[in-house]
Amino acid sequence: MNLKSLAQQLGISETTVSRALNGYPEVSERTRQRVLAAAEEFGYRPNPMARSLASGRTNVIGIVHPLFPNDLADPMFMQIVGGMVEALEARQMDLIMAPVSPLHELRAYEHIVKERRVDGLIVGRTHLYDERIAYLAKQGLPFVAHGRTSINEPHAWFDYDNEAGMRIAVEHLLAHGHQRIGLISAPLDMNFARQRFASFGKALDAAGLKADPRHLIENTNDRRSGYLAMQKILASDTPPSAVIVDNHMSGVGAMRALLDAGVKIGQDMSIIVWGKMEDSLAGYHVTTIDQPHPDLAGAKMIEMLLSLQAGTPPEQLQVLWQPVLVPGETVGQVKLG
Amino acid sequence: MNLKSLAQQLGISETTVSRALNGYPEVSERTRQRVLAAAEEFGYRPNPMARSLASGRTNVIGIVHPLFPNDLADPMFMQIVGGMVEALEARQMDLIMAPVSPLHELRAYEHIVKERRVDGLIVGRTHLYDERIAYLAKQGLPFVAHGRTSINEPHAWFDYDNEAGMRIAVEHLLAHGHQRIGLISAPLDMNFARQRFASFGKALDAAGLKADPRHLIENTNDRRSGYLAMQKILASDTPPSAVIVDNHMSGVGAMRALLDAGVKIGQDMSIIVWGKMEDSLAGYHVTTIDQPHPDLAGAKMIEMLLSLQAGTPPEQLQVLWQPVLVPGETVGQVKLG
Repeated sequence: MNLKSLAQQLGISETTVSRALNGYPEVSERTRQRVLAAAEEFGYRPNPMARSLASGRTNVIGIVHPLFPNDLADPMFMQIVGGMVEALEARQMDLIMAPVSPLHELRAYEHIVKERRVDGLIVGRTHLYDERIAYLAKQGLPFVAHGRTSINEPHAWFDYDNEAGMRIAVEHLLAHGHQRIGLISAPLDMNFARQRFASFGKALDAAGLKADPRHLIENTNDRRSGYLAMQKILASDTPPSAVIVDNHMSGVGAMRALLDAGVKIGQDMSIIVWGKMEDSLAGYHVTTIDQPHPDLAGAKMIEMLLSLQAGTPPEQLQVLWQPVLVPGETVGQVKLG
Repeated sequence: MNLKSLAQQLGISETTVSRALNGYPEVSERTRQRVLAAAEEFGYRPNPMARSLASGRTNVIGIVHPLFPNDLADPMFMQIVGGMVEALEARQMDLIMAPVSPLHELRAYEHIVKERRVDGLIVGRTHLYDERIAYLAKQGLPFVAHGRTSINEPHAWFDYDNEAGMRIAVEHLLAHGHQRIGLISAPLDMNFARQRFASFGKALDAAGLKADPRHLIENTNDRRSGYLAMQKILASDTPPSAVIVDNHMSGVGAMRALLDAGVKIGQDMSIIVWGKMEDSLAGYHVTTIDQPHPDLAGAKMIEMLLSLQAGTPPEQLQVLWQPVLVPGETVGQVKLG
């Protein structure tokens, strides 16, 4: 079956069928689903090379993925990628990830832009000052930043509200009587870590409190560094009664350090972790600041990217989702004494 | 600086310089290094688009990466990828990974082959019968399988010796007096798991022993399933005195299950894990069957792929590396009683 007979079958124009199959956002979701169902039913499969030549597009979306030695294995990130893949597969488009040495990351962007290997890019792990965003904002290639930065050039971004999430976490601990609260942070040149760190200070300040600098540990982004950070906090003269961990990779290690030290969690020490804790093997229901539906977040970014392609101005594509506190067993009333 | 003046500077032909920069294997490693060093020194950077048009090549190597919900986060795999990236970056080539839903994996290969988006492919996680290999062996696109299969079509592969590694592990336990040995396996449709499973049976057989079926647990490939598998083994009426775990992802979980159950490791229960255990947080030096230098393995596969491109017959590119036993603290003499 070819495009023409598929269009006749459906009683809609070839252009609309083609647009639906190519994932143009100006086709209604209902029509797109109808076309996809019919294409499936009648075994119609457009020749991808022909599609690509006709549209001048590659039908490929890319992510450059810097290979850091310690934080390669983030299940939450892969759930987001899963959502992107699903959204793209529904439009017969592909996702590619280009793993690169961190030192060559910017060069990889230059490559991709010059060769037009993709129709658009997702830029992950944004930095406070992010030269990749600065570079891409000057090029014509559509991109969505996963996370905000301090770059002023108008560009599309998707993020969770880091300030709100951290404020909720601190207020939850304050409500349980905690006044000595520690924070285990990712490297503070990461935008999310910086925003959460700032919000932590502000929320304590609003309660007339101040963190002990010895209870603020930076540069943790994996199990091991999270483990060591919690050990360090436990070893201080006057450990805090509660700790917030700003990333789930470190959170697994921090939980493990508490368990290995025999600390009664939720009694001697309360803990809140940012992000789902599916793989801690801790046997505890950890209180978390959760970013719901990572798969939908991935799909949302793809949708934003396709809107960009269709001409929506980037400054209209800035999306902030709210994190939520999911109460668990790891926060308890502070002990007196 | 252009190609011509770079060649003059070096006193070698433009063709050789071009070949060296494009990673053709017929140029000696020494010449290639010399050319790369000079290109670096004089800031020569070939226009990638021009290179691509001139050579009819994309200078991109691809990996299709099925997104399984549970085993997305394998640090060892990412070390192999790191080695590939490094080898490619030295040749000014790129790696792309295409994450796909497992159900669409074969379709992704068809896409890539039809559109010639890459010069070659690495095929990971080989199955016993692997339809991807069967498909690719019939196409013209060069590929290297990471792992063997039962497919007879001549093709290039790189693997570690699964039989030898498992035999060494069993013999190490036998030498410590163990006779009741359990095995925690990855899904047995994976080629590596099947080969290790078969070798396990053979090695016990050679010693006149037989495994208790209740001590053979399959389908583990992540922390959680490894944890549950070890719990199941510990709960049996007559638990074994030693267990081998055939993959390091499950190994972390299995170690954690022993620790959480308060089992004295290396005394009440010995354990050997296949693969490095960098992230167990166990505080134990685990006895492992190690696949040394995953980064060099990655580089080796790239080198094989470039040899294929240069015309080496695939059946001459079949490489088996030997795993080694790295003794740790988790294997002890069996207790009498």
